[in-house]
Amino acid sequence: MASTANPFSISLSSKPTATSSLRKINHSSDSFLRVQNPPNSVSLRSSFISPSSIELNLNRVGNSISSASRVKSRICASSAQVMDQSVTKSDPTAPTIVDVNLGNRSYPIYIGPGLLDQPHLLQKHVHGKRVLVVTNDKVGPLYLDKVVEALTKGNPNVSVESVILPDGEKYKDMDTLMKVFDKAIESRLDRRCTFVALGGGVIGDMCGYAAASYLRGINFIQIPTTVMAQVDSSVGGKTGINHHLGKNLIGAFYQPQCVLIDTDTLNTLPDRELASGLAEVIKYGLIRDAEFFEWQEKNIQALMARDPNALAYAIKRSCENKAEVVSLDEKESGLRATLNLGHTFGHAIETGFGYGQWLHGEAVAVGMVMAVDMSYRLGWIDDSIVKRVHNILQQAKLPTFPPEIMTVEMFKSVMAVDKKVADGLLRLILLKGPLGNCVFTGDYDRKALDETLRAFVKP
Amino acid sequence: MASTANPFSISLSSKPTATSSLRKINHSSDSFLRVQNPPNSVSLRSSFISPSSIELNLNRVGNSISSASRVKSRICASSAQVMDQSVTKSDPTAPTIVDVNLGNRSYPIYIGPGLLDQPHLLQKHVHGKRVLVVTNDKVGPLYLDKVVEALTKGNPNVSVESVILPDGEKYKDMDTLMKVFDKAIESRLDRRCTFVALGGGVIGDMCGYAAASYLRGINFIQIPTTVMAQVDSSVGGKTGINHHLGKNLIGAFYQPQCVLIDTDTLNTLPDRELASGLAEVIKYGLIRDAEFFEWQEKNIQALMARDPNALAYAIKRSCENKAEVVSLDEKESGLRATLNLGHTFGHAIETGFGYGQWLHGEAVAVGMVMAVDMSYRLGWIDDSIVKRVHNILQQAKLPTFPPEIMTVEMFKSVMAVDKKVADGLLRLILLKGPLGNCVFTGDYDRKALDETLRAFVKP
Repeated sequence: MASTANPFSISLSSKPTATSSLRKINHSSDSFLRVQNPPNSVSLRSSFISPSSIELNLNRVGNSISSASRVKSRICASSAQVMDQSVTKSDPTAPTIVDVNLGNRSYPIYIGPGLLDQPHLLQKHVHGKRVLVVTNDKVGPLYLDKVVEALTKGNPNVSVESVILPDGEKYKDMDTLMKVFDKAIESRLDRRCTFVALGGGVIGDMCGYAAASYLRGINFIQIPTTVMAQVDSSVGGKTGINHHLGKNLIGAFYQPQCVLIDTDTLNTLPDRELASGLAEVIKYGLIRDAEFFEWQEKNIQALMARDPNALAYAIKRSCENKAEVVSLDEKESGLRATLNLGHTFGHAIETGFGYGQWLHGEAVAVGMVMAVDMSYRLGWIDDSIVKRVHNILQQAKLPTFPPEIMTVEMFKSVMAVDKKVADGLLRLILLKGPLGNCVFTGDYDRKALDETLRAFVKP
Repeated sequence: MASTANPFSISLSSKPTATSSLRKINHSSDSFLRVQNPPNSVSLRSSFISPSSIELNLNRVGNSISSASRVKSRICASSAQVMDQSVTKSDPTAPTIVDVNLGNRSYPIYIGPGLLDQPHLLQKHVHGKRVLVVTNDKVGPLYLDKVVEALTKGNPNVSVESVILPDGEKYKDMDTLMKVFDKAIESRLDRRCTFVALGGGVIGDMCGYAAASYLRGINFIQIPTTVMAQVDSSVGGKTGINHHLGKNLIGAFYQPQCVLIDTDTLNTLPDRELASGLAEVIKYGLIRDAEFFEWQEKNIQALMARDPNALAYAIKRSCENKAEVVSLDEKESGLRATLNLGHTFGHAIETGFGYGQWLHGEAVAVGMVMAVDMSYRLGWIDDSIVKRVHNILQQAKLPTFPPEIMTVEMFKSVMAVDKKVADGLLRLILLKGPLGNCVFTGDYDRKALDETLRAFVKP
């Protein structure tokens, strides 16, 4: 494709941005992200990357840093470094910690079994004496008492209120959000209170947005209880609610004080929810971590069988990927958008089919298949990737085809209000190059998008 | 008062904070703000002020800076300096510019007549090609066409939508806010769009919060058309809506791209709205700018008669005061709270009496009288200040007594959910010392509050 003047396809490189390993591999005008991920590479921040020639490939060798010879940018040691502190831990009950580095809004992700039995982990992040736990009618009966115990044990000055919302994506709306505000105001919670989100992605997104907006912003803590929330939605500060015309159209970027992932909570997770979360795990492999994808291919059966070690590793590595991306691009000026592989197609399914009919990860799985199909039609990837994606999603018992009810028109009307549209042009995350590489671009042949839509849905 | 351990009364000095001229004048545990303001002083930022002994008094003498001898903190030249660029302007149609300095969220306030006839002022702050003007059914008919013309003149690529909300504080709620989201989504506005608030404080607060939340944050511009909005609510990024139990309980700190104050829009402002805005102008004098208060005493008749020069000066000097405070304490960790003199009592009146019965400034005027009364009962100010406050408010035709309907219980129940409550303790802004000085403190004799309430309302 010629290097035409498309202002959107170069958004990743046309302004100061940063990736841990970012290489422009051809002379088209789109940016190419090549991220061979931790554990062997250290993330670095380029404070200013020239848009014309970008090649960063930095690997930690002992304590020294070697860099490719063509780095033309000023590189400084990163504040966005993602640490895995589990390697050096001596206490076997101590959690694995992944840090999300965002300057004075940095916070830890605690990962491990039995963490709700360690009150100090939560209590050190509670501000003030009043706590409001936001949960739903599925998760509340299972874990609310345990969380209240963890918040108050040996800490009699803290009082805890709770609000229990109806479960499900279809309640992720303004009316339900108002119940959180009502409860907080009726309980006379002041600016020094803390909100705690206990549940899956819907609860985390709603509680986070309520915390961002209540009294113009109070502290909050995430306790995600689904794989989906643990590997994706609880990390990174995206909060919000749906509008009946589109998903997550109203919200805020607002970071929690900490994320506490007690992997024991997965024992009560329905199979379908487990599989839905694995869709996001698979996504990290596809967009930036080929080695992790290969590990998943070998371990997909263990993950489906809820092998605790396999799940813990998948969660940790997913959080590392997410934390690294968020640390580098909190407000989604470019790099962070790549985490939405399959989500534009997927949101169309969720919105068109009606919220709650399919789980988010189920829609994303189909969306990834469609994005991969389109990437192949554009000639950007070879067919082995197409097959491997189909294969792993099928093993995870995830759908690979949209619901019958969807039409091309339904896809197009929802995709037109996607947040990644800029000045009317839809930008997509597509795979390009070897496994583990993707682009975020509006510079693609419209014909390929039409062909993909026609191949997957009726006209 | 003994130096008892009250964690709230020292909030201004117990953490790194900054004021342009901050002096602790006695050994009580509350902080004392003494701000003799521009034009002769330069605002400075102390990156770390010791809580134990604070005395800053810095005046610009030519280009050198002299400081009081007891400054114990490291002082560096401020990023929070408020500039008045009007002094050097050569073009008579050029606006006066007051800068709000907030790092990468800094923005200019343009002040002057005929600014809506200068399209470049608005157009240089519009991002993307799509604009949504949010206005109401009073202001829209007067100025919407003019604003659309200013946005599009010589700029055919920009398209403008508008949404016209019902006028009044009682519509500053979630249902009305949803109309803005509905319009934006139905118009398929994307992240590169710009919202423009055209109207008074209610429109500015709602449009700002909509901009903060739409697609997790898009750009917006303030065009305030009331004195109240021009001197206070449009500057500083406080946005939000009311809850039926309290004012501004849901919202965000979110800064505009610019504030454009066309003083010609005041020609259509009702007298009662003019007086309401002057309440906030008077407030700046009382809390931090004695010289400005003295100027107001001499010019109150000119202001009431809408003398353009007097109004322009009052607006500029108010914006300078507001910009300086906001630059030093954006998120209201201390100093910024002092801008709420009279507002805690005033909010109780607005909420108890019903939104829209009284204008905001009318309620604030009574609130200031009550705060001044309480300050006098505490022995913190002499009675000359009490008399001068009564006198200027009466000349401004503002009320000095709450509505008959208010009871002590109504005040207490609304004040209990005020945003300045911390861990259950109500902090108030009270005057202390000579004219132009105030404190923000929870360390006051509860008896004085009760006496003030009993003096002003029935039991």
